[in-house]
Parts: sequence; C-alpha cells; structure tokens
Amino acid sequence: MQLETHHIADHNQSRAEAHQRKLSYWTNEVAKAEPIIQKLIDFQIAIPSWALGTGGTRFGRFPGGGEPRSLEEKIADVGLLHALNQASGAISLHIPWDIPSDAQAIQQLAAQHGLRFDAVNSNTFQDQPDQAASYKFGSLQHTDPAVRRQAIEHNIEVIRHGVALGSDALTVWLSDGSCFPGQLNFRKAFDRTLESLEEIYAALPDNWKMFVEYKAFEPNFYSMTVGDWGSSLLYASKLGPKAFTLVDLGHHLPNANIEQIVAILLHEGKLGGFHFNDSKYGDDDLTAGSIKPYQLFLIFNELVDGMDARGLDHARDLGWMIDASHNVKDPLEDLLQSVEAIQLAYAQALLVDRVALEEAREANDVVRAQELLQDAFRTDVRPLVAEARRRAGGALQPLALFRQLNVRGQLIGERGAKTVATGL
Amino acid sequence: MQLETHHIADHNQSRAEAHQRKLSYWTNEVAKAEPIIQKLIDFQIAIPSWALGTGGTRFGRFPGGGEPRSLEEKIADVGLLHALNQASGAISLHIPWDIPSDAQAIQQLAAQHGLRFDAVNSNTFQDQPDQAASYKFGSLQHTDPAVRRQAIEHNIEVIRHGVALGSDALTVWLSDGSCFPGQLNFRKAFDRTLESLEEIYAALPDNWKMFVEYKAFEPNFYSMTVGDWGSSLLYASKLGPKAFTLVDLGHHLPNANIEQIVAILLHEGKLGGFHFNDSKYGDDDLTAGSIKPYQLFLIFNELVDGMDARGLDHARDLGWMIDASHNVKDPLEDLLQSVEAIQLAYAQALLVDRVALEEAREANDVVRAQELLQDAFRTDVRPLVAEARRRAGGALQPLALFRQLNVRGQLIGERGAKTVATGL
Amino acid sequence: MQLETHHIADHNQSRAEAHQRKLSYWTNEVAKAEPIIQKLIDFQIAIPSWALGTGGTRFGRFPGGGEPRSLEEKIADVGLLHALNQASGAISLHIPWDIPSDAQAIQQLAAQHGLRFDAVNSNTFQDQPDQAASYKFGSLQHTDPAVRRQAIEHNIEVIRHGVALGSDALTVWLSDGSCFPGQLNFRKAFDRTLESLEEIYAALPDNWKMFVEYKAFEPNFYSMTVGDWGSSLLYASKLGPKAFTLVDLGHHLPNANIEQIVAILLHEGKLGGFHFNDSKYGDDDLTAGSIKPYQLFLIFNELVDGMDARGLDHARDLGWMIDASHNVKDPLEDLLQSVEAIQLAYAQALLVDRVALEEAREANDVVRAQELLQDAFRTDVRPLVAEARRRAGGALQPLALFRQLNVRGQLIGERGAKTVATGL
Amino acid sequence: MQLETHHIADHNQSRAEAHQRKLSYWTNEVAKAEPIIQKLIDFQIAIPSWALGTGGTRFGRFPGGGEPRSLEEKIADVGLLHALNQASGAISLHIPWDIPSDAQAIQQLAAQHGLRFDAVNSNTFQDQPDQAASYKFGSLQHTDPAVRRQAIEHNIEVIRHGVALGSDALTVWLSDGSCFPGQLNFRKAFDRTLESLEEIYAALPDNWKMFVEYKAFEPNFYSMTVGDWGSSLLYASKLGPKAFTLVDLGHHLPNANIEQIVAILLHEGKLGGFHFNDSKYGDDDLTAGSIKPYQLFLIFNELVDGMDARGLDHARDLGWMIDASHNVKDPLEDLLQSVEAIQLAYAQALLVDRVALEEAREANDVVRAQELLQDAFRTDVRPLVAEARRRAGGALQPLALFRQLNVRGQLIGERGAKTVATGL
Repeated sequence: MQLETHHIADHNQSRAEAHQRKLSYWTNEVAKAEPIIQKLIDFQIAIPSWALGTGGTRFGRFPGGGEPRSLEEKIADVGLLHALNQASGAISLHIPWDIPSDAQAIQQLAAQHGLRFDAVNSNTFQDQPDQAASYKFGSLQHTDPAVRRQAIEHNIEVIRHGVALGSDALTVWLSDGSCFPGQLNFRKAFDRTLESLEEIYAALPDNWKMFVEYKAFEPNFYSMTVGDWGSSLLYASKLGPKAFTLVDLGHHLPNANIEQIVAILLHEGKLGGFHFNDSKYGDDDLTAGSIKPYQLFLIFNELVDGMDARGLDHARDLGWMIDASHNVKDPLEDLLQSVEAIQLAYAQALLVDRVALEEAREANDVVRAQELLQDAFRTDVRPLVAEARRRAGGALQPLALFRQLNVRGQLIGERGAKTVATGL
Repeated sequence: MQLETHHIADHNQSRAEAHQRKLSYWTNEVAKAEPIIQKLIDFQIAIPSWALGTGGTRFGRFPGGGEPRSLEEKIADVGLLHALNQASGAISLHIPWDIPSDAQAIQQLAAQHGLRFDAVNSNTFQDQPDQAASYKFGSLQHTDPAVRRQAIEHNIEVIRHGVALGSDALTVWLSDGSCFPGQLNFRKAFDRTLESLEEIYAALPDNWKMFVEYKAFEPNFYSMTVGDWGSSLLYASKLGPKAFTLVDLGHHLPNANIEQIVAILLHEGKLGGFHFNDSKYGDDDLTAGSIKPYQLFLIFNELVDGMDARGLDHARDLGWMIDASHNVKDPLEDLLQSVEAIQLAYAQALLVDRVALEEAREANDVVRAQELLQDAFRTDVRPLVAEARRRAGGALQPLALFRQLNVRGQLIGERGAKTVATGL
Repeated sequence: MQLETHHIADHNQSRAEAHQRKLSYWTNEVAKAEPIIQKLIDFQIAIPSWALGTGGTRFGRFPGGGEPRSLEEKIADVGLLHALNQASGAISLHIPWDIPSDAQAIQQLAAQHGLRFDAVNSNTFQDQPDQAASYKFGSLQHTDPAVRRQAIEHNIEVIRHGVALGSDALTVWLSDGSCFPGQLNFRKAFDRTLESLEEIYAALPDNWKMFVEYKAFEPNFYSMTVGDWGSSLLYASKLGPKAFTLVDLGHHLPNANIEQIVAILLHEGKLGGFHFNDSKYGDDDLTAGSIKPYQLFLIFNELVDGMDARGLDHARDLGWMIDASHNVKDPLEDLLQSVEAIQLAYAQALLVDRVALEEAREANDVVRAQELLQDAFRTDVRPLVAEARRRAGGALQPLALFRQLNVRGQLIGERGAKTVATGL
Repeated sequence: MQLETHHIADHNQSRAEAHQRKLSYWTNEVAKAEPIIQKLIDFQIAIPSWALGTGGTRFGRFPGGGEPRSLEEKIADVGLLHALNQASGAISLHIPWDIPSDAQAIQQLAAQHGLRFDAVNSNTFQDQPDQAASYKFGSLQHTDPAVRRQAIEHNIEVIRHGVALGSDALTVWLSDGSCFPGQLNFRKAFDRTLESLEEIYAALPDNWKMFVEYKAFEPNFYSMTVGDWGSSLLYASKLGPKAFTLVDLGHHLPNANIEQIVAILLHEGKLGGFHFNDSKYGDDDLTAGSIKPYQLFLIFNELVDGMDARGLDHARDLGWMIDASHNVKDPLEDLLQSVEAIQLAYAQALLVDRVALEEAREANDVVRAQELLQDAFRTDVRPLVAEARRRAGGALQPLALFRQLNVRGQLIGERGAKTVATGL
C-alpha cells in the first residue's frame, strides 16, 4: 500500500473551499496564526513500532487484520501515517521486537518515508524464549548479579542498535518492583537499580540521552522501583547530565497534577520527553485527548511556557512519542486521532496570551487567568492544524482520506487478515 | 503427588506441644473458643480452577513448573490443598477452560478428594479459536443479536455442565463495556444486557442461583456495563429471586467502602457471594489479606453480623471463593496463604462482642465501638484456626508441610517444568 | 446596585459587529444553529443562596467584600446575574440560613428580578445555636428518636417555607454516616434513615419532588449513609414516585464515570436534578468546567440523549443548580463562569449528530463515534451562547460587563468591605 | 484535674494478675521481648497543642466540653496523657495559637509534667485578625514581596518562640498552591517559595532542623506548591543539611505507597519526621491505626529497618508527632488510642525477624517474606506495650483508667462545658 501524491492532492482539492472558509477566520482575525502554523509544521511526534498492531489486556486480545509482520512493514505503516499527516516523521523501536538485520537498509527505507529514528526502547519486563536468566523478580534491581548483568548488557546492545540507526536516546522503562509487602528491600533495590543504570549510562555515546521512565503501578502491584517523578529525578540527578525523566501520561496515581510535574521537571532541566496517551483509571493507554483533552492542553501550556523560558526548541529538544494500546480501534486510525489531538493541544497552548496571563497571575486575578486559558482552549484551532498539514504536503483530513482510500482493506489484502504484530 | 495421612499426622505430632501451649490461652480464657472452632471447621472456600497456574499481566507471564495440565490435575491440586487445610473443599470451574469430557468420572474424582463443585463460570470476555462471532465489542450487550445469541447459548451450556457436576450456581462476569466516550449507548447496552441475562436466567434450574458480578474497570477502560454494586443490584432485582450480586474485592473504585456495600446487599437479601483477593491499585488479584487485612476483617464483621441477622448459615448460604492471580508466587502456596487469611478474618469477626458493640453504637460511643473491633482484630487467633484444621484432619501448618514435603518439586517431577495451566 | 437596561444595550452595541462576524459562521453554515439558540434561551440554572458569599475550607476562609447580608440582598445578587446572562432565573434557598420573614414580599421581590424559587434545601449537618438536639452523630439516621424527630420536623418546616415561596422540590442532603469502623450499624442506619425519609416524603405536597442527594465522603470519613447513586436509588425507589436521585458532580469516588450514572438514572426515570461544579480531588466545589470540561460535555451528552428518549422538557423536567464554593474568586464572577461553562457544554451536546452517532454505535465504529463527539466538543459554540443571551436581553459578555461596571466595587460601597454571607 | 500516683497504682494492681498471665507468653517464649520493651519505654510521641480540642470540617464543628482554654491547660492535658501512658512526653506548639507570655514559666510547667517541647509550627494558611497582608493567595509563594516578607518574619518569630522553650525544630507546612488552572506560574511559585524558605533557613540556630511538610491537596484544590515528597525533597536538598522532609500520612494521592517513600527518604538521609493519623479518602485526620493498621506497621517496618541501617536512635533522631482531628471522639481518648496504635505497630516492627527477611528477599522467596511480616503483625503485642507502660510508671490500660476516673467529667467541671480550644 503506497499513498500516491495525487491521492492527497485530490483529497485536498475536494475540500479546499470549505477549508479556506474556515481558515479565513484565522487569516483575517488572528495575527498569531502564521507563527502557529509554522510551529505546527515543525512539530513531529514519534510513533512506537509496537503501536502499529492491536493491543490487549490480560483478559484477551482481539487482533484486527493487515498488521505489519516485519520491521519493514512497520516502517511502511509509519510512512503511511506520515504521508497523511506530515507530523509522524519518526519511529521509536523496541528491542528485541524490532532488531534490524541490516541497519543500513532499514535506515534507507525509513529515509525514503521521510522518517528518522527516535529513542530506542529496551525490554527487561518480559522473558524472551532464549534468555538465560528470568526477569520474574526484576531486572536492574535483581538480587542476583547475573540477572542484572544480562539486563545491563541488553540495554547496551539496544544502544548499539540505536547508534546503527541514527537514534540518539535510550528509553529505560523498568517494570521492576514488588507485588507484596516484604518482598523487596526498597533501599537495596534502589541502590542496585542505580548501579545498573550507571553502567548503562557509561555506555551512552556522547550525544545521547537516557530517559528514565517512571510508573506508579502495573505490572508490579505493591511497589515500583522507579515509581514516580521524584524517584526518576533522583536517579537522573545521580546519573548525570545525560539522564532525564520521561513522563508517560498514564503512569500516575489518581488525580495527580501532571502539568505541575512537567513544569518542575522542565524548570530543573531534567524533563527528557513524553509518552502521550489518555486514561481514566490506570495505564489505560487510550487515544491521546480522548478522555481529558483539557489536561492535555494544560500540559502543553506548561511545555510551551517552560521550553520558552529555557530557550528550548519545541520541535527538537524534547522527545515526543505516542504510547497507546489500540484494543478496540484500528491502530492506524487511533494514531491519526492521537496525533491530531496532540497538535490541537499544542496549537491551543501556542494561542495563550502569555503576557496577559502573567499580568493576571501577578495580580492574583484568578478569574482572568482561567478566562485566558479557556479562551485558547475553547477556540476551534482545527483549521490551523489542517493548514499546517496541507502546507507540509499532508492531507486536510487524514482520517477521512484513510477511510476513503480503504487503506486497511488494502493492507489486509497485502498482509492477510490474521497477522499479529509484535507488542503488548 | 498424593498426600498420605501419615504426612499430616507426623507433622501435627511434631508441633503438637507448641500448638497446645498456644491454644491453652484460648481454652483457659475464652469461653467463645469452642463455637468459633466449630464454625471454622464448617467454613469452606472454593478454589477456582484457573488459580492453580501462574497468572500474568499484559506485560508478561512468568510460569513456574508443575502446573496442572488437565481438569483431573486441577482437581488433584485442589485435593492437595484441601488435604492440607481442610478448608478448600470446593472447586469452581471455568468453561471453556475446564469442559469435562466425562462429568460423572470427574464428579467421582472430586468426591474422592472430598470436593464438591461450586459456582460454574462462563467466559464471554475472550474469543475461543473456533468461535463464530467475536466478543471484541462485548457479549450480552452486543449490538449484533447473533453475538448475544452465541453468548447466551454459551452461558446455558455452562449451566448444563454445572448440572452434570452437581453445581448449583452460575457466575456471570461480563467484561462488556466501552473504551471510549461515544462508543456505547449506555441505555441500550443496559437493556440488551438485561434481556440477555433474562434468557440465561430462564434456563436456570429451580435450585440454582445466578451471581451477577460487577467490576469498575478493566478490560474496558471507559465504562463497564455492570460496573458497580448499584448496577448489579438493579439487574439482579429485575431478574428475580434467583439472581444475586457477587462482590469481588478488587472490582471497585479507589477508597470504596466495601464493607458497607456488603452490609446493604445482605440487608436487601441480594448478596450472593464473594471473590476474595487483595489489591492496592486496581484489580491486582493479590493474596487475600496481603495488603489490607483490617478491611478483610471489617468485611467479615459485616458478613457475620448480616448473616446472623437474617438467620443464614455462614457455611452454606453464600458462595465463598478465592479469585487471585499468582504472578510471583507458587499458586498453591498463594492459595494456602489466602485461605489462612480468610479464616483468620472470619475467626476475628466471630470474636467480636456484638452485644457490647450494639450498646456502644446506640450510645454513640465511637471510641468504645472502635476498641471492640480492634480488640478482636488484635487478638492472635492463629491457634484457633490451626486447631480447627487439626480437628478436621488437616495440618497445623499447611504451608510449612507443603514445603517440607517438597510438593512443588514432586509436581514438577510428575508434570514437567514447562507446563502452563489454562487461565489468565 | 441596579443594572440599567442601557448598560446592557451599550455593551452589546459596542460588541455587535465582532459578535455578528463570529455568529455568521453559524448562521451561514450550520442548519442547527437556530433551534440550539432557542433551547439555550429556555435553559435556566438555579443559583443557590449560599453561593453568593466567599466559601472556605476547615483551614480558613478569606472573605471578599460586598457580600449579601440578607435574603433580600441575595435575591438582588441573583437578579444581577440574571440581568447579565438571562440564564440564572431561579434561586435555591437554604433553611435556616434563608428563612423569609415575609414570604409574599420575598416572592414579589424575586419576581421583580425575573426569578422563581427552585428546590429548597434543609440543613441537618450543622447545629444551630438554639437547637435542642445535636447532629454530631447524624440526623435522619440517629439512634435517638428525638434527634430524628427534630430533623424530620425541620425538613417539613423547610417544605412549608418552600410552599410559601412557590418552590416545588425539597433537596435532602445528609451528612449522616460514620468516621470510624464500628461506629455505625449500617443496616440499622439505613432503616432509620429510610423511615425518617418516609415521614418527610409523606409531608410533600402533591406536585412536589424530593431529591435524595448522595455523597461518597466528607464530612464523614469512613461511611456515608447515602453514599452513592446505588444507595440513593434504593432509597428513592422505596420512597415512591415523587422521590428522585440528585447528582452532585463532586460527590463521587476517584475516576467514577458520572455520565454513565446519569444515563442509567435517567433510564430508570429516577434522575431528579443536578448540582454543577468541578473538582480534581474530592468535593472541591470549583467552578463548573474549570477542571474537566470534556466530562461536563459528556454528561450533557447523556442528559440530552436521555431526556429526549423519554420526551422530557430540557428546561423544566429536571432541576439544574450550581453548587460551588468560591474560595479564591469573586462569587458573582465565579457563578458567571460556571453558567457559561454549563451553557457551552449544553450547546455542544445539542450539536452532536445523534443519528450518525447511533449508526456508528450499531456498527461498533469506535473511531467514528469518538470523532462525532469530539467534532461537537471542538466546535467553538461561544457565539451561539452569546446570541442566546443577547436575544433574551442579556449581555454578550457578562463577565466583561460586570467588571466594566465595577459591580463589586459598587456592592462594597453599598454593603461594606467586611460583610460575610451565610454559607460554608 | 491531677492524676494521682495511687490512681495508677490501684489500676495496675487490679489488673496485675491478668496482665502477668498474658505477658508470661512473652517472657517464656520470646527471647526478644526484653529489648522491645526497653525500646517502647524510650519511644515518645509528641502531642500537638491543637489536637486537644474537637476538630471539625468546613460543614461544621461539634465541640465537646472541658477543652483547654489556655496554653497552660493544654500542657496540663498532655501531662495527663503522659501520666497515663508515659509515651506522650512532648508537646508541639502552634504559633500564633500558643504564644507563651512567659516562656520560662511555661517551660517549667511542662517540665513538671515531664514534657519537652517538640517542633514548633508556623501558620501562614490563615489570616489573623490583626494581620497586615492576607494569605488568601499564598504566603511564601506569594507574588507580592510584602506578603512573603510577613510570612518569613512570622516563621522567624516562631523559631524565636521555639528557642525560648527549648524546641529544636521548625515545621513548615504551607497551604500555598492554586485552586484553578492558570492561577499560578508553577516555576515562579517554586522559586519564590524556595527563596522564602532560604531566608527562614538562614535564621535557624545551629542545632535546629527545618521540616518541610508536603501535601497533595486541600486547602488548595488544583495544585500545592509543596505537593509531594519529590517536591519536598527538592526544596530540602536545595536548602541544605538542616532541612528535611516531613511525612504526614494523610497527605498523599490515593493508593500511594507511603512506606516506600519513607524508605527512600531515610536512605537519602532526608527524612525528618512524621505526622501520624489515618484516613480513607483524603486528609481525614482520623485516629492512627483506625483504618489501615497494616500500613502503619509496614511504615514502621521501614522506619526500624532504615534507622538501624543508618545507626539512628529510634527515639531521638526523627520527629514523631500525632496530627489528627477529633471530630466525633473525645480528643484525649482519641490521642490515647492513637499512641497505643503507634506503639503496637512499632513493637510489631521490632519483632520482625530481619535476618530471615533479608534471606527470603535475596532468594526472591516472596511467600516467606510475606509470612515473616505477617507473623509479626498477627502477633498480639498488647502485653508488651502494657508492660512498657507499667515499667515507666503508666497505666496498664490508659483508656480504661481515663474513663474510670471520669477525667472528662472532671475537666468539664473545672473548665466548663462550652469551652472551645484553638485549632481547626
């Protein structure tokens, strides 16, 4: 399935008039529209290779069809997304699910689709068939040095794969923790984990970053050894300047104020990147913006404010990635929805009148501060996002075009109805 | 692996003196000891067939060895547990994981182990390989009548299997719900589910009960069609006198007061049974009593009080079952711990001075009411539970004997190190 | 402080052109705009008398100035709001804080402001200075019949006040419950509460409704005797056809799916009304729509759908009220923000393409169902709400006009800077 | 009301035989009993001055009688508690509620009761009648330097009072935060708060500690500027070696693993002290051990383990304090219950077989690790705690003696039935 240029051209042509009418409000009334469109064009969200197949829960998995059977097909899928929205120009691999046999060929293939390789992800939360030691009781925290050694070596191997592909960051998500009171000596687990991380850190190339991801619970149900931003920051601070905290929106206790966490981490210079998704109960891994779109906006409000305060490049200085599980949706459609929701939140955050906001804050004018944020959030920025896509060569309505072209049907035709992609 | 009578006799002999010394406190000081021991002997907790193997999460599963490979071996495992603690005299089957090829032979086998068949469980939350319609979007709630029909027929088939085995209850746990706002018309889903349940209800034999289990979230992450006790009670009330609510301790929102729910359901005559486990975050399915033992006691406090108020037989009139997932423990050891914790909570609840408690309540003497509950909870009732086991023919210390006899080692020898039991 | 007609006329005049430009999108492109505007004009949200002053927490209260010192001044404040937004045409009184000395005069005063009297509220969660018995250990649940008698009589007196003012509903919110395990016999508390409610119910005039409000926690921190929608529905069902459940958005456990509760209650014919506010942690009583605007929209989505399914009149058949606590905002500004947020959510819910939504649901097209809801939510409906206000005689931008006229300053001038209104 | 020596002697005499019988199990069977008793004797828990009166919620307060009307009477109350249990030998004052007019006299009075002065507490979460600037929008975080100045000076004044009384620690609990998205620039609020804390820190005497308390929510309902242990640790680390984190059990998001937080903070050398209480929903401030006694034990398990690992003196190197609100109980009875629950948890933690536990952990024997903890928790250690009290000169059953002597009745006789102590 290859998306042809005329597909997008035809689609955009057929919607051009309606689009221009909606856009005219912006071009006529809002001075800020043009820089926002530029920023949207630059802003790319990486797609994780494991998000291209149907996800599941411990209770079951209901695969769809036409899922990618190989790394090449995964790249093709991300290429498709990127052709449609011109905002998914990176792919995040997961080792060992995506070990490239020929790194150079894979890199060329990605380049043909306009894709670069984002952070690479290690996996020490599952046992692989041929694995010597088991991660049943943890990996970097394990009491047995042989298990830690294996997990450290695996991470270093992941870095090597990443180097070969042109990636420049390693994401370490650990499921390490405990399921029962008593199981773990928290102090020793902390120290062992830190030591293991130090060895991995030492293997990082100069221009690389390490992202230390935290999670409050699951798959361990009593304690997680990197359980919250406080722990992650502690590890990252002890590790050194190349270590950063990675925030996954679904990895918090109920009611956590994630936007405040983001602000503080950015302020400390220790925010590394983001895993976008949405959730109502736990790490539900739902489509970004599908449950709490205002929270997503508030997070972007802090991101924009905090990155500007530090002079960071929105598009390049932090890692942006989706991490969702598509249990009941077509994975590619779900990803298109997620990217759109993220772009809308970003655009709305760019729309906030920051000078007025700071004035309201200085004056403790709470009503006005809320009005300023909600003014931006209540504004319909869809025409801006569509225009950014259009200018970058993408489709005005990616999801509509995806369906119109029957992309999934074609993928099923090519790959079969019973394929199951690697992943959760 | 067969537990011989002399194993238990030897074990008990070796610990007899220490046991008697601890028990003497009770026999000398506490008038109530004898009736509590009797009630403990009568109290049996069913073991679900799927809890005999290692459980897992969506992130992975780390099986142990010697897991049962057949229904016969599952019965043997429960027989082992029951021989050790004389408190696990029932088994709860799950269809289609446990379809008996020869029901009569299975019933005889169970009888040899002193086991009866508790509630049978249907499964419409997973697709079976040969299944015509998919439950991806629900079963009894499904918009497609063909899917509902399939799910209804499956439940009726489960009843037939149950009848053949001498069971007298059907547990219906539905994963039906939705993952995203908009996906479901809540009203129509309620009505379709109710209609489907009515058809199943109509197929119940006269002496059967139907347990309608509720769950707040997972595997659906936006709404569950039987999501809380209020919904379950609504369904059960509309269905009729044979329908009851089943409470699983892990199926609530954070901070729910489960003991109050239990009290109200019992008061309404609509509490059907219990799935015991423990949890900190969600449906963690941890060992009963491992996280919140005081909550377990408070629940038993309501159960004892409410059953006595209605003249119910503690041992027979409600369904008691463990429903846990043993991700990091030996399943049989985990079950021994769960049963022990449940027995302790029950014994402590029996110890509460109810006359004094009602007096304190009438007088709004909150301090005294708390003291009365905590007096019972702080009392070390382990000698009572051990004595009940001893008298019933079980081991004083089931877990110690399990390890001393190297039961797991023997099971691995018989069954192999790589067996994986059916289940989650 | 009296708002003059020319104030609004001048304000609207000055903003007419900008408003028309934004509105033209609607009048040109959206066929549905006109009926939505009509429905918005009809939709009135009652203001509770206790929300006109600054609220506080147990840690402190920081009053502003110019708060109403009497029932007459409270009516004047609501009159002001209504003059500004033409959507706050009702006031909900709280007894004993608002006992009218001359009901007829008060009714006339309200009528002059275009206000009617919504549900009256009883208070058995505080002790009044002259009160014979204390509610320390509950009111309708109390073990002492004398306390229950006092609480019942109080509620009946509240009905009498309501009748005199032309109200037709009683809201019963009970803080009854317990702070510690053991304190309460849940069954007896349920029965006593039900009996007390039955006596109050018997005193309801024929055309009256009783709203049974539930709350998960606070001010009791272990159990609440009407703790969730399941309990409330149980009471309301036992009481009879005039009893309904009232939903306050802040009265749930973390992560509760309130929109599903709303749908089921409506479907059962037992939803009586709503207390609007917003919250992140508990009963935070924040401005409606300030934390989770999408949830507010989803609730209205169910309300519109469910009311239409039963042929209910949106504006008249349910009780709509704000219940918030303005700890850090000017109460009147906060209420203007809340009403606006509610109107926006209602307008967006009216915008949903219900035919397409039901089609998507029937086809289990989850992606499309989400798109349909989010299309409505992402639409900027502010011009519609402003137009509805304008046509009804209100201000295009009530908050802006409020500030421009320096209403608070004038109220402080009239009433003083140190006034404190009755309330929490 | 003065407790006479013979009161305790008579009480203990009358219960001596029963006590000895229960204790004999320990003296005969448990080698560890004697050192545990010694540690219990040394372990003292400070009583906050504001916990001697009835607390309340924003919905109401139901005072009891005989509450202390002055600092002298508060000291007398703590003296009474200490005479009864010999475990409450410290008092924690709150400024401005407890400003001593004559520090020396107060110190002498306390000494007569065997009391020392624990950490002093500042209050910048309420406005005092004569206060120049308002804390409505925060104190140390405030945008206005004059407000910060006032709050800083207040804290320095609190230190001065503490010095005069022989205290050696300042507890800073800030309610600073925001109620609405947009209200606060998180970064600037962090910086301003840090700067303010630095000024206070600079005023600390050499031998003093500063405890930075965190809280997740309430009274601010969107963000708290010191909101979790991660923030508190960040402030404390930037401040210097005399700054520590203070943990209040009720100040967390739902389901937080507090014992792990404790372990990590201890490991970092940054745990300063504890506020004990219990809760089910939020900062419910219930009696310690009344809701989750196993959690309290698990926390002490980490405390004992972590303090021993660092060679800390259990009794002296951390600050132990109760912080509860007695809404429905007699405050003194509530405090007796809290102290007892804390002592029981401490004794059980001392009972844990740490060598075996570490062995089990090294071997990933999760079942055994749980057994070891639960063995300790299920043991009835009440005789040990009673014996420690007896040896120290206290009563075997303080609560029973408190009631037998009708202490509250006498206090009401002395002080009146309508007194209201300062506090929340």
